[in-house]
Amino acid sequence: MSIQYILEIIGTFAFAISGALAVNDQKHSDWFSASFTAFISSIGGGTLRDVLLGSYPLVWISDINIIYAIIAGIITTFIFYRFLLRLRKTLFLFDTFGIALFTIVGTEKALQLGVRPEIAVIMGVFSATMGGVIRDMMTNEIPIIYRKEVYATACFAGACFYLLMDRLGAERITAFISASVVIIVIRLLAVRYGWSVPKFFR
Amino acid sequence: MSIQYILEIIGTFAFAISGALAVNDQKHSDWFSASFTAFISSIGGGTLRDVLLGSYPLVWISDINIIYAIIAGIITTFIFYRFLLRLRKTLFLFDTFGIALFTIVGTEKALQLGVRPEIAVIMGVFSATMGGVIRDMMTNEIPIIYRKEVYATACFAGACFYLLMDRLGAERITAFISASVVIIVIRLLAVRYGWSVPKFFR
Amino acid sequence: MSIQYILEIIGTFAFAISGALAVNDQKHSDWFSASFTAFISSIGGGTLRDVLLGSYPLVWISDINIIYAIIAGIITTFIFYRFLLRLRKTLFLFDTFGIALFTIVGTEKALQLGVRPEIAVIMGVFSATMGGVIRDMMTNEIPIIYRKEVYATACFAGACFYLLMDRLGAERITAFISASVVIIVIRLLAVRYGWSVPKFFR
Repeated sequence: MSIQYILEIIGTFAFAISGALAVNDQKHSDWFSASFTAFISSIGGGTLRDVLLGSYPLVWISDINIIYAIIAGIITTFIFYRFLLRLRKTLFLFDTFGIALFTIVGTEKALQLGVRPEIAVIMGVFSATMGGVIRDMMTNEIPIIYRKEVYATACFAGACFYLLMDRLGAERITAFISASVVIIVIRLLAVRYGWSVPKFFR
Repeated sequence: MSIQYILEIIGTFAFAISGALAVNDQKHSDWFSASFTAFISSIGGGTLRDVLLGSYPLVWISDINIIYAIIAGIITTFIFYRFLLRLRKTLFLFDTFGIALFTIVGTEKALQLGVRPEIAVIMGVFSATMGGVIRDMMTNEIPIIYRKEVYATACFAGACFYLLMDRLGAERITAFISASVVIIVIRLLAVRYGWSVPKFFR
Repeated sequence: MSIQYILEIIGTFAFAISGALAVNDQKHSDWFSASFTAFISSIGGGTLRDVLLGSYPLVWISDINIIYAIIAGIITTFIFYRFLLRLRKTLFLFDTFGIALFTIVGTEKALQLGVRPEIAVIMGVFSATMGGVIRDMMTNEIPIIYRKEVYATACFAGACFYLLMDRLGAERITAFISASVVIIVIRLLAVRYGWSVPKFFR
């Protein structure tokens, strides 16, 4: 079992918890809504990446463990949600962990399929953020990438950092972990100090 | 001509009527909006299923009869809409009929493409409900699966019932019809008696 | 280099400017939002067309010039946006130019892939309008095709005109230019004289 695979499973589990907790604010937070939202949040970004790259079969269709990781995330949320919500930053931390893993997994997968580095970066950012974007589009929220100051931009920086490490000849595991840390650190500092992306229109 | 094919045509016709009637509440209900909404509602779910499964060519691209069934649904709505709207439950019945047929057609097709039963159930539910979800996302409505108490859950139950019948060795036509009836009955009872899916957060 | 290719690059550039200018009305118009919106508006329609047709690799994934055309459009907008916005009809003109080119490029590409004329028309309209629809769905706007009176309908007319010219044996370049002009003229006249598509419900 590759480390990429284990991290994809962990990222899926983290995103499922983040997705199931997200419907807490919704009026109709029944079992179906929570499960559906957890599912879309978890597989949306990677699915879009693979459909755009024409990479079939999709990961969650060929590998049932992805589905089981999502179900585990939903049940974990159901059992521990009071605990998870009381820790006010839990949702945020699970989401940050998820986007860091998915960005690098997505960038790597695109590179392995032979696309150019510029496209691999786009695929990394899409893998991490588009599950949340689709979730927000469905619940009529302004998508996360428009709301949060430094969100997708942190993924973009991490994906570029991964490519740089790769070019410099770093070992894969070193590149993977350091690029993930870059994303997590940027995101944490951005929220802590209120960093935002520069205005486009002056 | 297989029964699956005939039912897909009938379901498409039913969904086109349901879609064209849906724009009646919109401010701008011109010919283009009505036709476009009927089209998206009819082919959205099956298209998403086939794109996710990588099953090309898409049904409505290779088989022009799907397009003609949608056009027939639009024209039928245009001619008889006063009559259709006066029967206040018409829209609801056409939609219920459509989701029942599409759930089972979608589950069957996924099984024929060799995916696991868990994935086939997801594909059945997607076939039936995602056309309406995409329609609602485009018109800025809260998607139907978040609003209605027992909607996608009825499809889920019907798809599971179909798999059970299949395992028990039932004939295909028996499994098809009985599972469709399960969906229709659950949906009718749910609306009649106000059934809702259990709350996720207590 | 084919004329189809050059026009696709110009159309992409025009759509990127139109997309980047569109976030001017949004509250959070930072560099990421503007770039992301420009990107989605430019490649959304063609991507949907190619995914529906199963035509891989996607144009912007195999040809980096598409990405460069979008970046050029974003930078052009950033430098000249005061000038572009002062010319109040600029956004409208860039968008009109973009939909005309994309409709015909999309119709042609679908025909070359061997689909029926009816499907080619749908693909032409999708190529031109669905980038804007996805953009509007993401920013919680009512999609452009529901709002504007004669918008997608102009693309529909132009695509049909292209097919007619093709049947009558017109040279490709003649058919291409005349059909684009049909779309531009219909759109300009529609806005000038307030044309709207006939009501569906009387």
